[in-house]
This record gives sequence, structure tokens and C-alpha cells, in this order.
Amino acid sequence: VLQSRSRTVAIGAERPFCIIGERINPTGRKAFAEQLRAGEFSTVATDAVAQVQAGADMVDVNAGIPLVDEPELLIAMLRTVQQAVDAPICIDSSVIEALEAGLSVYEGRALVNSVTAEDERLEEILPLVARHGAVVIGLANDETGIPETPQKRLECARKIVSAAGDHGIAPEDVIIDPLAMTVGADPEAVTTTLNTISLIRDELGVNMCLGASNVSFGLPQRHVLNAAFLPMAMAAGLTSAIMSTAEVCVQSVRAADLLLGHDAWGASWIGAHRARQATEKQEAAAAS
Amino acid sequence: VLQSRSRTVAIGAERPFCIIGERINPTGRKAFAEQLRAGEFSTVATDAVAQVQAGADMVDVNAGIPLVDEPELLIAMLRTVQQAVDAPICIDSSVIEALEAGLSVYEGRALVNSVTAEDERLEEILPLVARHGAVVIGLANDETGIPETPQKRLECARKIVSAAGDHGIAPEDVIIDPLAMTVGADPEAVTTTLNTISLIRDELGVNMCLGASNVSFGLPQRHVLNAAFLPMAMAAGLTSAIMSTAEVCVQSVRAADLLLGHDAWGASWIGAHRARQATEKQEAAAAS
Repeated sequence: VLQSRSRTVAIGAERPFCIIGERINPTGRKAFAEQLRAGEFSTVATDAVAQVQAGADMVDVNAGIPLVDEPELLIAMLRTVQQAVDAPICIDSSVIEALEAGLSVYEGRALVNSVTAEDERLEEILPLVARHGAVVIGLANDETGIPETPQKRLECARKIVSAAGDHGIAPEDVIIDPLAMTVGADPEAVTTTLNTISLIRDELGVNMCLGASNVSFGLPQRHVLNAAFLPMAMAAGLTSAIMSTAEVCVQSVRAADLLLGHDAWGASWIGAHRARQATEKQEAAAAS
Repeated sequence: VLQSRSRTVAIGAERPFCIIGERINPTGRKAFAEQLRAGEFSTVATDAVAQVQAGADMVDVNAGIPLVDEPELLIAMLRTVQQAVDAPICIDSSVIEALEAGLSVYEGRALVNSVTAEDERLEEILPLVARHGAVVIGLANDETGIPETPQKRLECARKIVSAAGDHGIAPEDVIIDPLAMTVGADPEAVTTTLNTISLIRDELGVNMCLGASNVSFGLPQRHVLNAAFLPMAMAAGLTSAIMSTAEVCVQSVRAADLLLGHDAWGASWIGAHRARQATEKQEAAAAS
């Protein structure tokens, strides 16, 4: 269960999938990174609003720019997003000071992205998560890098869940990232991820989240690939993703929700369809 | 392995998915049924060509119209399709005389759709399939109807494969239909189908094919639902489907092929993308 000041989002195996908008991240977005360096946050606000309108349940906020005071920047970005939308936020950084700063200004119950199964990271980040009563994403890798086999990723996941317990964080407040690598670099990459997801579901039963767009990196028509990947991962047991809110991706997730029995009798699906029809009718009337 | 006069299509777990175009079927197509009654076959030819152009590897041909001489009509339709395209054909009928007539005019190695696990059907259809050296689709239901559990569907599948063996038909020439029901009538329908697919893959290791569009019957935006369903079914082990060749569905299948490692390094995916770009460029040049 994640919260903003005014909104609650629950993630779970029997619930509709939790879409976390990936866009507020300067990695690979040169113009956006320049704006952030210049203290210009209008794109942060418009990206937040656009993603929620497109169907995001939460938004990820990442302030990772080289040679920038990341804690300070993350605070400013979080304040902007909290003013713009009421969706809960995923505070995304590999820098502990930034996570700490982010949690200090976050209003609600945050999702912290991320810890790994590395001893040092676990000892640094879990106390912080526990102190703030937050939820944490744990990446299924450790000191030795990204495990090639589902079994080894499961072991990393198990270690994270166990360490979290030692810090008083319940299994339901740990979300495992089973790791999605690009299929363009390894034809087995997605199969490994899918097998990891079902293994973790069967063995640990915890929530899972991954950076879904990684699978299509470097390939043409990425949204179509991502839209095909998400239903597979959902059927295997994935319960949330940091992902693009492109229409084809969001619709694919909502279709998979219905197909997997998480939108009984298609109430949400049919409701969304009718809302779209009504909007089109209004637009047509306005244009004539 | 299926064949037309001039083309061979192989279906298998390590190969790209086999798309069988569903459109040449008068069920629910009133105007088309009227044309067929009147001996007018131009739509049959254009539907065959359009489906192959849209990406179908094979085409299904069904002549089921009430009070029509189905064997005669099926022969005429098959002749039309064989002239129009070189894709192998799935001869689709519940009437044994129609299957027999169809096989007598088919040039190549046909796919016969379908037998069930009912004793009488097995004894009628399997000798015919064996005599023609054809491949057969076996529906995982029997005298008691459509089993609700994956385990019972597996038992039906096992019975069909075994009976086929008794008639000299090898397991690789039997394709099991794990049965896709509409999720609009039962929220568990798709989960049951997916579990059946993985069970049959693990226990029997045979090829599978289903009528994929059934899942979305009665719901809005059927193509989007079908496009989300197919990757899930493919990840579970489905190797072919009788399906719509709408662009969103075909692209979803080809994306899933790539994601599952059946299009190594994305050679087909990237090739199709470049071909589309070249066509768009030509069209733009022609328009200017």
C-alpha cells in the first residue's frame, strides 16, 4: 500500500496492475537534463500530469544527473510532482543521501527505488526505509552482478526479504525487481525474466516490479515490444512496472488485467471504452 | 509440417508462431454467407490474399452455413483459395463428409480442423487423416462437454494423441486445441486456458493451436484484447492460432516471437520495420 497526501494505491496479485510512469528521469533525455540543471521544473510538472492522465497509478521520480547535487534536485522535483498530481511517487535513486532527502519531503507513504542484495546497500538503505515506514523495491542482484539464472535471482530476492524482516519491514512492504534485460543483447533475456517472475511468485509470493522498457532497448518499435512483454510478465506474476504510459502500453496492461480476471466482467475496460467514446463524441460536436 | 502445392510451413516450440487467418468463415458474417450461397467467391479470394499480405502463414477455410451442401461449397472455396494464395490451408468443418471432400481436392499436406476426444469422432476422423497423411487439430473436449479444469483438458488431449497413434498418426502430426473461452462470460476463462497450455506443453510436448478471438467475444476493442492475450499464450507454450490478422494482433505475435527468443537478434522484426519504412518512403514520394 502506497500513499500520497490524498491518494492510496494498493499493489497485489489479485488487483489490477500498478502502472508507474517512467518518464521523469533525465537518463537519455538531454534537453530535460539541461532544464533540471537550470532549475527549470515545468517539464517535470507537465510530465507528471500527462502520465497520470494517460493511466499511470504512480510516477517514478529520478534526479540522476552527473555532477549535480542530487539530494537537492530530487527534493525540488518531488515538491513539483506533489503539487502537480496526487498519485503516489516512486523515489528513484542509487544515492542514499538522495533517497534520505527525498523521504524527508515526501508527504505520504513512499516507494523507495531501490536496494539490492548487496550487504552494504541493505545495511544502508533498509534502516532508512524502516524509519520512514516506506515500501522498498529490491533488485535481484548482488555483489557478483546480475545473476544469469532465475534460481540465483530468487536467492537474491530471498536475501532481501529476509534482511528487510530483520529491520522490521514486512514482506508485503518489499517489492522485488526480477530484472528485465534487453532481448536485443540476449535472445534468452526475456525468458529468464519470465521464469524468475514465476519462481519468485511461487516461492516468495511477494509483489514484483520491473523497468519494463529495458527489454526493447536498441530495437525499433519499442512500444509494441513493451506492449507484448507486459501481458506475458503479468501472466507470470508481475504486479507492477515502471513503464511507458504510451497508449499501446497502457491499453495492453488494462487488457491483460481483464484477461487475467483482475477486472471482473470487464467493468473498468468497458467503462474506459465508454469514456473514450463520449470524449470523441464531444470533440466531434465541438469541431462541427 | 504443413504444405500447399508450393509452400511449406513448420510449426514448433522453437519456431516463430504460426498465424492462421480466421476470416474465411461465414459464421457471423451475413453478407459473406449470402455470397457463398449464391456461388460468388470473389470475397474468398480477396480475404485470402489480404490475410497473407497482413502476415498470415496459413489460412483457415470454413464453409459452415445451415442448409447448404457443405462438402460441395468447401470444395469450391478451397479451389478458390488455392488459386489465390500459396499458403497452406486449415480445412475447417465439423462435418466429416466436408472434411473428406476438402481433403480430396487439397493439393499438399493439409491441416484438418478438427477432431475431439469423443470416441465416435476419433473413429470417424482419424482414419481419414491417416489416409491423406494430413495433420489434425484435436479439441480438448469429449462427450461430457468442455472440461473446466486444465487437468481434465490434458486427459482429453492425451486420449487424442494416443488414439492418433493407434491410427499411425505421429504425435508431431497432432495439434491440440486447449480451448479458449470468452473472459466476458467467466473471469477465470483465460487463466484456465493458460494453465492448460503450460500443462500440455510440460506433459505432452505437442503443438497447440486455438481460436484466439474467442477470448474477447462480446467485449469492446476486441483486437486490443486479442493482442494482449496472444503473448501470454505464446509464453505458456502455444505454437499457433486461428486468429485475426489485424495489424495490432500480427505485430503483437511477431513482437512476442522476438521476446521469446524465436527471432534471434530480431532479424525478422528489424527486417519488417525496414520494409515498412521503405514502403512509407515510396508512398510519400509518390504522393508528392
